[in-house]
Amino acid sequence: MNKARVEAFSDGVIAIAITLLVLDLHVPEPGSGTSLAHELAKQWPSYAAYVVSFLTIGIIWINHTAMLRRLNRVDHSILFLNLMLLMTIAVLPFTTALMAAYLKATDGENLAAAIYSGSLLLMSLAFFVMHRHLLLARVHFLHEHLTPEVRSAVLRRNARGLLPYAFATAVAALSPYLTLAICGAVAVFYALPATTGDTPPEAPIE
Amino acid sequence: MNKARVEAFSDGVIAIAITLLVLDLHVPEPGSGTSLAHELAKQWPSYAAYVVSFLTIGIIWINHTAMLRRLNRVDHSILFLNLMLLMTIAVLPFTTALMAAYLKATDGENLAAAIYSGSLLLMSLAFFVMHRHLLLARVHFLHEHLTPEVRSAVLRRNARGLLPYAFATAVAALSPYLTLAICGAVAVFYALPATTGDTPPEAPIE
Amino acid sequence: MNKARVEAFSDGVIAIAITLLVLDLHVPEPGSGTSLAHELAKQWPSYAAYVVSFLTIGIIWINHTAMLRRLNRVDHSILFLNLMLLMTIAVLPFTTALMAAYLKATDGENLAAAIYSGSLLLMSLAFFVMHRHLLLARVHFLHEHLTPEVRSAVLRRNARGLLPYAFATAVAALSPYLTLAICGAVAVFYALPATTGDTPPEAPIE
Amino acid sequence: MNKARVEAFSDGVIAIAITLLVLDLHVPEPGSGTSLAHELAKQWPSYAAYVVSFLTIGIIWINHTAMLRRLNRVDHSILFLNLMLLMTIAVLPFTTALMAAYLKATDGENLAAAIYSGSLLLMSLAFFVMHRHLLLARVHFLHEHLTPEVRSAVLRRNARGLLPYAFATAVAALSPYLTLAICGAVAVFYALPATTGDTPPEAPIE
Repeated sequence: MNKARVEAFSDGVIAIAITLLVLDLHVPEPGSGTSLAHELAKQWPSYAAYVVSFLTIGIIWINHTAMLRRLNRVDHSILFLNLMLLMTIAVLPFTTALMAAYLKATDGENLAAAIYSGSLLLMSLAFFVMHRHLLLARVHFLHEHLTPEVRSAVLRRNARGLLPYAFATAVAALSPYLTLAICGAVAVFYALPATTGDTPPEAPIE
Repeated sequence: MNKARVEAFSDGVIAIAITLLVLDLHVPEPGSGTSLAHELAKQWPSYAAYVVSFLTIGIIWINHTAMLRRLNRVDHSILFLNLMLLMTIAVLPFTTALMAAYLKATDGENLAAAIYSGSLLLMSLAFFVMHRHLLLARVHFLHEHLTPEVRSAVLRRNARGLLPYAFATAVAALSPYLTLAICGAVAVFYALPATTGDTPPEAPIE
Repeated sequence: MNKARVEAFSDGVIAIAITLLVLDLHVPEPGSGTSLAHELAKQWPSYAAYVVSFLTIGIIWINHTAMLRRLNRVDHSILFLNLMLLMTIAVLPFTTALMAAYLKATDGENLAAAIYSGSLLLMSLAFFVMHRHLLLARVHFLHEHLTPEVRSAVLRRNARGLLPYAFATAVAALSPYLTLAICGAVAVFYALPATTGDTPPEAPIE
Repeated sequence: MNKARVEAFSDGVIAIAITLLVLDLHVPEPGSGTSLAHELAKQWPSYAAYVVSFLTIGIIWINHTAMLRRLNRVDHSILFLNLMLLMTIAVLPFTTALMAAYLKATDGENLAAAIYSGSLLLMSLAFFVMHRHLLLARVHFLHEHLTPEVRSAVLRRNARGLLPYAFATAVAALSPYLTLAICGAVAVFYALPATTGDTPPEAPIE
């Protein structure tokens, strides 16, 4: 099966999920008594969560293009794992809104933050599982020959990318702010171009 | 007429429908008195319906790619049947939300479940009608030569795929939970890769 | 300039507009006292408007593919007219919701229906203006040679397609139901495949 | 890395952002006592903002296609700057809704207008930064040879495009209506085809 429609469908779902994030930003009711500046300032968790999720989805898209670029065909097992990955991405507008709504609350804030970083952990895990399947069980679908050592190295780097999200989920019990900060730091770390500027785009999360 | 834009438009509609499902997940109001964990747990029908619909739309997309891959051109009759199929897919975020909202209600729950599985039945029927049209009335548009026996076999398998949804719709009168469970079982059955892992992706729903 | 991205962008906007129509369908609040069947039955204007708008946008997409297929390149004037056309399509989820909300009201129903069919008229007009520009002022961008007679005939047929919407807008003052019925009849007329089944897809609205 | 998926993803995000603008148009509640005509007339800021933002996003899409057409490959630094640009576009449905909601308010209207034109300024700035990076630091990725003089001229024109938005943001303190009018004038100026009709599409904002 040709992979062009898989790429088009994945691009569509990821582009929609990243753009739907804007629906989590709410316009304060005019004439509510307090000033607009005050109302908008109160919503800073929504803006912070928006930026972190936007960057994170953008990075996963970059990694997704890099992962699929290696393939010359797909089969049903790959379509299935790709669908699982897309589900974990498509749900992010919800977990982002949840985290933003509860960040400053005095009840539920730890659970909301844990769900947020947990959803990012799940997304990274789905990416890892799909990548592992391609590199270990579908070697004959790859364009280029990768030695077992290279493949193990790629997957090890990929697996290490799960650690910050696992840590962020764990510290949600202590501070939801810390969870958001860690997720944001991960996004900035992978989004920023390497100083050489010529790193192959698939480098980051792997 | 070239089929590339038909694929692009269909990919777009299906990708949007599958991603819009997330709008059916609602963030509980902070500070509502009960704990967030309790509020989220109460919403389990929404999460279950989300997963079932996401998988189902994902499968219909896989089957759609397989169906169109066989074609080397399209005409107005195909565009029309494709539009009908897309309408049955595009409406699923509504019927999914309806089912999720009423699953635990004490009134209307049977009707809501019947509408949900009925909408999946309608989608499968639209797929079957389009597929039948291609295989019987547009044979000269197909890339490969399929013997009448092969074509009948494909359509028979396709028609059998309607039965679980018809059954799920019928049992909605008894239990909406059973309806959801059947729809979920169908989704998992078709989504899971066959054990060989090399089944052609068009096999499942046909 | 290559037309591939114009097609991709137009497919995207049209696919999103047609899929966003589902957001106009509302799930009745559970436990509102009246039966779900009754509540859903009351919403029939929303379902009727959904189907009419879905078919209409689907037809305009078919005509759009046919129109662009004739071109071998685009310039800024074409991009501008295409953007105008896309704006008239992208606004349809709003005018559809407006018509559905007011169809059974005792105040505003005539205006809402006039706005609905007026928006369809505007869309057809934008299509006509763009088509006219291509056939008269951008002849050198066309793949095929069309004689002036053929071009006039195409545009005359195209212009005649405006009449039903103009009529539907006029009768909105008498009956919004009639307006919706006319718009629905137009959609069905153009959507249904011709009996030969091999009509070139660009035939309908032109 | 091939640029096809970058174009597809960007087309997706921009097409979704431009189409989501329609969610900012609200259907007045039927039976609210006042006439529908009156209610709709009261919403004119929403319609004006819709048209201005639709045109502006359409123009940035035209410029984006022109910018990417010059490239024959992309690297991580380009993907990162493109993601930043897409974020400034994806947020426009929010800032548009904010401006529309406050235009006629007696409190917060200046801030809302400043945020609106500020978001357009940010978008233009992100475009300029990305364009500058391509023309100065990624010359070896360009299809065509551009002399340093040509590149400076293109960037100077591009930088001049920031001025109207900076001015519109500054005058928001005086009159939000003036801010909207300036943003609208910019959109019309760049959207309208040049009289020759054959200007290369990348001319406008650069």
